[in-house]
Order: sequence, then structure tokens, then C-alpha cells
Amino acid sequence: MIAWSTLLEKLKELSLLEKTLALLSWDQETYMPEGGARVRSEEISLFVKFWHEKMCDPFWDEVLSSFSEREDLSSDQKRILEVFKRDRDKEVKIPTDLATALATAVSEAFGAWHEAKRKSDFMVFLPSLQKVFDLSLQKAYALGYERSNAYDAFLDLHEEDLKEADFDPIASETLPIMQGALQAIQEYGRPPQKDFLHAVYSIEKQKSLCEWILPRIGFDTRRGRLDISPHPFSTTLALDDVRLTTRYDENDPLGSFYGVLHEAGHGLYEQGFLPEWEHTPLAQAVSLGIHESQSRFWENQIGRSFEFIQWIWPTMQGIFSPLLDSITPEQMFRAVNEVKPSLIRTEADEVTYGLHILVRYEIEKKLFRGDVGLSDVPALWNDLYREYLGITPPDDAHGVLQDIHWAHGSFGYFPTYLLGNLYAAQWYATLQRTLDVPSLVQKGDFAPILQWMRENIHHHGRRYEAKVLVRRVSGEPLRPVYFARYLKERYEQVYGISLPLSGEKMEAATS
Amino acid sequence: MIAWSTLLEKLKELSLLEKTLALLSWDQETYMPEGGARVRSEEISLFVKFWHEKMCDPFWDEVLSSFSEREDLSSDQKRILEVFKRDRDKEVKIPTDLATALATAVSEAFGAWHEAKRKSDFMVFLPSLQKVFDLSLQKAYALGYERSNAYDAFLDLHEEDLKEADFDPIASETLPIMQGALQAIQEYGRPPQKDFLHAVYSIEKQKSLCEWILPRIGFDTRRGRLDISPHPFSTTLALDDVRLTTRYDENDPLGSFYGVLHEAGHGLYEQGFLPEWEHTPLAQAVSLGIHESQSRFWENQIGRSFEFIQWIWPTMQGIFSPLLDSITPEQMFRAVNEVKPSLIRTEADEVTYGLHILVRYEIEKKLFRGDVGLSDVPALWNDLYREYLGITPPDDAHGVLQDIHWAHGSFGYFPTYLLGNLYAAQWYATLQRTLDVPSLVQKGDFAPILQWMRENIHHHGRRYEAKVLVRRVSGEPLRPVYFARYLKERYEQVYGISLPLSGEKMEAATS
Repeated sequence: MIAWSTLLEKLKELSLLEKTLALLSWDQETYMPEGGARVRSEEISLFVKFWHEKMCDPFWDEVLSSFSEREDLSSDQKRILEVFKRDRDKEVKIPTDLATALATAVSEAFGAWHEAKRKSDFMVFLPSLQKVFDLSLQKAYALGYERSNAYDAFLDLHEEDLKEADFDPIASETLPIMQGALQAIQEYGRPPQKDFLHAVYSIEKQKSLCEWILPRIGFDTRRGRLDISPHPFSTTLALDDVRLTTRYDENDPLGSFYGVLHEAGHGLYEQGFLPEWEHTPLAQAVSLGIHESQSRFWENQIGRSFEFIQWIWPTMQGIFSPLLDSITPEQMFRAVNEVKPSLIRTEADEVTYGLHILVRYEIEKKLFRGDVGLSDVPALWNDLYREYLGITPPDDAHGVLQDIHWAHGSFGYFPTYLLGNLYAAQWYATLQRTLDVPSLVQKGDFAPILQWMRENIHHHGRRYEAKVLVRRVSGEPLRPVYFARYLKERYEQVYGISLPLSGEKMEAATS
Repeated sequence: MIAWSTLLEKLKELSLLEKTLALLSWDQETYMPEGGARVRSEEISLFVKFWHEKMCDPFWDEVLSSFSEREDLSSDQKRILEVFKRDRDKEVKIPTDLATALATAVSEAFGAWHEAKRKSDFMVFLPSLQKVFDLSLQKAYALGYERSNAYDAFLDLHEEDLKEADFDPIASETLPIMQGALQAIQEYGRPPQKDFLHAVYSIEKQKSLCEWILPRIGFDTRRGRLDISPHPFSTTLALDDVRLTTRYDENDPLGSFYGVLHEAGHGLYEQGFLPEWEHTPLAQAVSLGIHESQSRFWENQIGRSFEFIQWIWPTMQGIFSPLLDSITPEQMFRAVNEVKPSLIRTEADEVTYGLHILVRYEIEKKLFRGDVGLSDVPALWNDLYREYLGITPPDDAHGVLQDIHWAHGSFGYFPTYLLGNLYAAQWYATLQRTLDVPSLVQKGDFAPILQWMRENIHHHGRRYEAKVLVRRVSGEPLRPVYFARYLKERYEQVYGISLPLSGEKMEAATS
């Protein structure tokens, strides 16, 4: 009989390998000189291979079958086995040849994507993308899917058990919410004043502000740190070593700040797993959607609220003095909540962000169904931007080539961004039932809010799937109506207008 | 028959593991938050275990025996096999139990050493040190040594093939050289003016100077970088990714600068291996002594020369302006070359540095011979400091507890520091035969000097043992007389006095 401690030891080995891979990547994005790139990618490949070999180790078949008959396991232990088995099955099912071919195709596609973006020509990217797509289809088949439901394979990889059939109604319900809000704001037609942000804000001062906010929202800087990278991210090198990055632009003082709030939301989640489950799935994130709900919550629900701006105002004014001396918190509140259709997803406000996502979702769905081919994508992209956002990309660089995800083979990833926004709004509504969030935020007293997140979400790790978790936390499945209500409250306050959001479901939620 | 390419592939896997271990350590010393320490040490242990398993893989027995009969190998290929076999034998001969016990003892000794140093009490360190020492003796036996020559095992680990019998005459010859110079300088009795260094030199400006000098001496900053750590070091993450660190103290403007020149010397060596031998012993350092010769050469022979100070003076004055505005290069030259007996090895000047080393060498020799026990070490330490340097440590913290090496089980390491000084002087003398070094330095034209190092030392990697290399480069075995001559020239210039260095051998060398 295999001891539980042996199993934990083996899980730990896998976890240490994963964390070392995370360090290799973190360094690559932050400090590595350009000369390190070649060997670094070889190291990453080698450790991915080691990890794959360890996942496929026949030892696990024995462990999993031996434990499947045991009656003496706690529900947490059973869940660990269940989740690990699911992860492992995905790893084992993909033939090594296919994994290698896909890795090579992805690596080529990265280069092609960069070149295509520089030349603003999708056709330069097309052949490599086609390879990645075709091999991704093979991957879906290997995972047990068919052409008719191949897209579900990719949704499931990022959001366990999510299917097109789950996301379709969410998409249909969220689309008119966003379009309705956008239309009303555009009809109102008076953008907030933002000229005071168009000055030179010293990067040192931006850094001070970012370092200042982290511990105040509860990010433990003895168990993590903030660095700089061209593409901001957060990564976990250990339960007690969570790394965040941001980028600084002296003409965009709040880009770094809201970037840090966003990444800190991810980081707070990772710092919030329970030490007793370290190196097991119970100290891992449920899904990308739930992860994104944490970042969005701190960035938007908290960080862009009027109460937050009021609270941080003396500090922000002080650090950037004299640049903001004649500005009021009301002006800043409106400036950081401007809604405006734009071409680039990563620069979008929270009303239009989901529209960017739905463009990509529609395209991915059609691609996997075989309704369109890859060469149709640029035209489809532009049509959808016109339809959803009322604007047309002037070229491929500002359109279909803006995201790296497809080059990476990360199909099915985008929907999790929208889910994150929706979950965040639902958490906020639930939290309001027991805590007076605006009053706490106005005092800078974030501890009770973080504690609620810890107990309701962080501490569970992957104990529950997202679908189950949202019901446990809020008593309901995921409902876009909370997002609608949140947008209505926030943007009526920002613009001083009445927003006619999707009526019927709104009522039900407010009652 | 095993293909050469298969062997290279396996060597590369080992090398990538080593480089990943180097990254884990680099991050630990530079950016890792304190919370990361626990998991980091587990990761390092895991990868050391992987590496050990891969070194002991029976595949290698087959490879090595198969290639030993091959007639078609180049001398470089033969050398790769020879060096790798030697490294591997050392790894294989040490039983896993012993390696584990030693790792545990070292880990405990680290903590005990820190505590003992804080309390300035050697007795707090003694029990843990005793364990490390006893297990180290076992290690020497496992490597095939006996009590009578156990110290040779440790000399050999840091300087291939170095024996007490080799180092004893070097020590005896170097001791009077250093003592003679020190005595003459002390009798002269007029220390250089240094008051202008006792001001606040901004750390930002120190950083600018350090970043400025690196590319100018030939350190490729696209293939490396400079960071901060409490204990400066250099490490190689790849042939094209060499990391240096330094520390900044605003009351010691040149501590960081000479620290960077020192580490850059190590880094230039590592950047100078040939790409075609990457991941093989031919792209590795010969020994610690040769490594140290590179750092010492750039720090002292070049960096503390009058010509160097003259060349860098406008830049240094400019960066630190107005602090050095009224100072002359002559004053700075004398200030950075002050000779003064001191208690702490790492702060010693190049005349007295070797005396610190010989104290440790004498103690290590006696310990391994069994002439003294560990509890005798503090008294012996103080006696030797009195004898060699004329000063007595006031307490253990400023005496026997200052270095971490013994806690780490790194016996036999210290002599390589002295060897480094001696080799550096011999390279300098050799270089002078073909290049007018002072003129080049005065123009800041370091390229021909670096090129000479590249061709004569760097490009060879471990092709030749240190003993062979020094003969090839200079036509002679290592001779302390070059060090004597260098000290004489330098310090006669610094102090304006005549230095009576060890006569006879001097003459022989100058003739």
C-alpha cells in the first residue's frame, strides 16, 4: 500500500519543477539579458520534458488505482486525487510527437507573429498560425473531442468544464448589457476631462505609489515583490514568493498604478492559499476566470471606485505634487473611468472590454466548427469590431494581430477574461450583503474585504470547480445581471446620466 | 557504438541543470523575497539530486569505456572525456548517505555560524563545524585519500591537482615578499590622504560609474548584467548570460567600483569561452585560482594603476562632481592603493591580502594533519594574525568567525585566492613582453589586453590544467617573483619609497 505521504512527496517534486519553470520564465521577462534567450528556451524545454516524464510516470497509475479503492480518505484527499487525475489524463493523452510538433510550431509562430505585426500583414502570420491551429485540432482529438466540439477542449483547458453551451448564453446576455451602456454614454457625448494626465509624471514617483499601495491592500511584500517587464504579469514561485510586474510610462501615470492593482489581485489570490495544502491542487487557482475575477475586483470594483480615489487622494496628490494640486478626486474618478470604444483590447475600459472578448470568442467558435478558415479571420475581425464597437481597425497590427494568444496555441483563453469581469461583479454584490464595502474602502480598511476573499475563495484552492464555487459563495450560478448592475451604478455616478441597462433581469436582481 | 553527438546531448542536459541551479542561487541572492527561502532551498536540493543521479547514470560507464578505445578522437575530444571522467569519478565515489549527511551538516552549520558571528562566540559554532569537518574527512577518504594527505583532497577540488607539496614552497616564498613590503611601508609611516572619500557619494552616481565602466573594459552587457547583492559575486547562467553583482555604500564610493572591476574580471573570463564548446568542459574555468587571476588582474593590475586612474579621471570627477573637483588623479591613485594591516580579509589591500590567506592555509593544514583540533583554532588564528600582520583580533567576530567558507565545508578554498594574485602578476609580466600595457590603459584601449587574455586563457577553457596553462602562457611555472616585482613597482610609485623585496629571485626575473 502506498502511503499518502509518498504521494505528497511526489506531488511536491512536480510542484517544485513547475515553480522552477516559473522562475526561468520570470527571469526571462524581467532581468535576463538578450544573450540569455537561446539557452533559456532550451532550459524551459528540458524542464517541460522532465515534468512531462514525471507526470506520465507509471507510478501514478498504481497510486491512483490503489487510492481509488480506499475508504479512509477525507473529501479533501479525494479531491486532490480527482483533480490530479484529471490534469494527468490531459498530459498522458497527448502523444509526445504531437506535443513536440506543437511546441515547434508555437515557437515558429512567435517569430512569424512578431514579424507580421511589425509589417502589419496577417498573411505573413497565416502559414505558421495554420500549423498551430491544425496541430491544436489534433490535440483536441487526442483529448477525446471531435470536430463538432473541439472548441470545448480549449475552453476546458482554461476554465475546467466550461463548454460553448455554457458560455453562449452568458455571451448573449452580456452583449446587450455592454452595448446598451456604451450607446447611452456615447449619446451623452461628454468625455471626462483628462488633460491633467498629459504631463510628465516621474517614473520614480510612479514606483513609489505602486510600492505604497501593495501592503495597504494586503499584499505581503515579504512574500512577494514587484518588478518591471514589458508585458505585466504575475507568477508564483512559491506560496510565499509571488512576483508581480508592471511597466512605467511617464506620460501615463495611472497605467502602472492600475496595472499593479490588477496584478496584485492575482497575487493576493496566490498568497491566499493554505500552507497545509502547499504543492497540492488545493493550493492552486480554480481557473483562469476565477483568477481574473480577483485581479479585476481590485483593479475596478475597488480601485476605480470613488471611495478609493477619495481615500488615496492625499497620497497621490502628495507623491505627484504639484501636478495634481488643482485637481479634485471627483475629476480623477471620472478620468479613470472614461468609456470609449477603442481598437486595442488591453487598453479597453471595463464597459467595452467584454466586446473585444466577444469578437474573439465568435471567431474562435467559427474556426473550430469549420464555418470559416483562418484566411477569413481578418475580414471577420473587422466586421465584428464594426458591429460590436462601431469602429474599424485601420490595419492588421491594430486589429487581428494585436494578441499573441493564438500564436501560442491558446485558443479558448479569451472567454476567461470576460468571465473574470462577471465573477468580480458577482463577488462584489455578494460581499455587499455582509459588508459595507464603500465605507471600508473610504477608510482604506481593506482587511475585511481581503478576509472575505480569503475565506470564500482563496482558501479553497481547487477544492471546488468554478461552477460550484460561485454557487457556494453567492448562492447562485454566474449571472451577468450583477455585472449589469455594477456598470449601471458605476457609470451613472461617473457620467451623471441614467443608464438603461437590460431591464427585466436587472429588476429580478435588485428585488 | 555511441555517437559523439549523443554524448554532447547528455553533457548539455547536465550543463542546463547546472545553469538552472545557478539561476536559483542568483535569484536567491538578488531579488528573492525572504518568504521564498524555504521552497528555494528545497528546489536547490531537488536539482542537486537530479544532477547527481544524472552524473551517476550507468550510461556514462558505457560511454566512457566505449570512447576510451576509440582511435579517431581529436585531442580536444579526448580532453573532454578525461575531464568529465575526473569530475564524474568524484561525484560517483561519494556515497549518497555521506553527501546527504554533509548537506544537512552544512545547512545546520550555516545557521550556527550566523548565530556565533552575531554573538562573537566561536564555541557556538564549534559543534556544527566539528560535524562538517568530520564528514569532510569522510569525504576525503571516499575520494581515495588518507588522513596523511586528506587536505590534498580539498585543494584538488578547487584547484585541480594542487597539493600541499605544491603550495608549501609558494607560501614560503610569498610570505617574506608580503611581509617585507608591509614592513617597509609601515616604517615609512605616512598613509595616503583619504579624507575626500569620507563624504556622501550618491548610490545612483556610483551605479552610473559601474555601468559606465563595464562595456569599456569589454564586458558585453547584451550577454550579461549587473545587479545588487549583500555579498558580491559573479555567476554564469549561460555563455551569453553572465551575471555580476555588487553592493553600494554611500560612504564608500570606490568599494562598489572596484568590486565591479573584480567581478567583471570573472565575468570576462566566462564570456570568453568558445561557443563551439558550450556545455562541455572546454567552456569551463580551469580552476578557482585561474578564475581569481582574472578578477584580480582587472581590479588591481589594471584598475588600480596610475594610468587607469588618469584615464578614468574626467569621468569619475564628472559623475561625482563637485566632490572630487579639487582632487588630483595622483591623490586618488595613492588613496586606492593604501596598504594597512587589517583584521578582515575581504577588506584587505593586495599586499596584506595573502597574509590573511596564509593564516587560513596554516590552520587548515594543521587541522587535516591532526596537529590541532577545532577548539584550538581561535587561539591559533589570533597567534598567526599577530605573527603575520602584527595585529590581534579583539573578538571572534573580527577573527576566526569572519568567513563562511568552513561552515560550507569549503576547506582548501582559500589558497586559490592567493594563487589568483600570483597568476595575475605573472600574466601581467608576460603581457608586458608583447604589449605596452600602461600606454594602452592610459588611452582606455583595453581591447588588445582582453584579446590577449581571450587567446591565451579564456578560449582554452579546461583544455589544460592550471600548471600546464601557466607554462604555456608564460613559459615558466608559477613564480611568486612576478608578484614581488609587481608589488615593488606599484608601491614604490604609490609611496615614493624604495622597497627591499626578496632580492635574489627578483634579479633572476628581471634579467
